[in-house]
Amino acid sequence: MADRATTRPQSAIDAALAAITFDARGLVPAIAQQHDSGEVLMMAWMNRDAVAETLRTGRVCYFSRSRDALWRKGESSGQTQALVDFRIDCDNDTVLVLVDQIGVACHTGRRSCFFSAVRDGGIETIAEVEIDPDKLYPK
Amino acid sequence: MADRATTRPQSAIDAALAAITFDARGLVPAIAQQHDSGEVLMMAWMNRDAVAETLRTGRVCYFSRSRDALWRKGESSGQTQALVDFRIDCDNDTVLVLVDQIGVACHTGRRSCFFSAVRDGGIETIAEVEIDPDKLYPK
Repeated sequence: MADRATTRPQSAIDAALAAITFDARGLVPAIAQQHDSGEVLMMAWMNRDAVAETLRTGRVCYFSRSRDALWRKGESSGQTQALVDFRIDCDNDTVLVLVDQIGVACHTGRRSCFFSAVRDGGIETIAEVEIDPDKLYPK
Repeated sequence: MADRATTRPQSAIDAALAAITFDARGLVPAIAQQHDSGEVLMMAWMNRDAVAETLRTGRVCYFSRSRDALWRKGESSGQTQALVDFRIDCDNDTVLVLVDQIGVACHTGRRSCFFSAVRDGGIETIAEVEIDPDKLYPK
C-alpha cells in the first residue's frame, strides 16, 4: 500500500523511550491527528513496545487495554495510520502522532471517534458513517 | 475579556455527565484543540466537576492531579481557553474540547505543549517560546 510510512533510526527510538514517562500501568496516552487537515481522529494508549514499533515501522501501533496486547491499527480493518510525525508533550506524559489515516479511524465507520457533540440541550451526532462497520470487520 | 465563551444549559451538562465514562480515579482525559487552526494544544484531565464547570461557564476547567483540585485554565497565567465545542468519543472515555486559546497553552510559554518531535536521530524542539514563563507566573 502506498503511503507515507517512514521508519526512524534506533537512536530516535531510544531517545523517545528515554524521554516518555509511562504511567503505573506502563502506558502513555496517544492522540492521533490527521497531518494535513488537523482533524483529531482518536485517542488510545501505547506501551514501550507500541512506541518502539510505531517509530521502527512508520505504522502506528497502540496497546489495547481490553485485549492486553499490541494493537496494530488497521490490522483487521485495513484502516491503517502511517506515521508522519511523532511528538511528545512538555510533561513527557502524552504523545501526539500526526498520521495519514487510510479510510476511517473509528470502529463505527466514521472518520473520527469524536462524533458526539454537547450542543444545545443535549448530545448530537455530528459525523456520518462513511464505511459500514460490517465491511470493516467481516465475520 | 472578549472571547467566545458561551454557557450550556443544565440539560446538556446532565447529558454529558451521564454519557462520559470516568476512570477509577473519577477522571477522563481531555484534549484541547484550537478551534480554527486545528492545532492540538494540550492534554489534561477532567473530573465530573470540571466537565460541569466547563460547560456551565464556557471556560475550560481541568482537574489537576498534582494539586488534587480544579484547575481553571488561565487562572494564574491569564491564558484562558474559551469553549467553542465539547465532544465525546465513541467509547465515551475521552473528551475533545475545541477552544479559543488566549495566548499560549503551555506553561513553558509555547503555544502548544507538543513541541518535542522525534525526528532524524533524536528529539527536536520545534516551537519557540512566545511568552516568557516568568511573565506568565510572576513570583
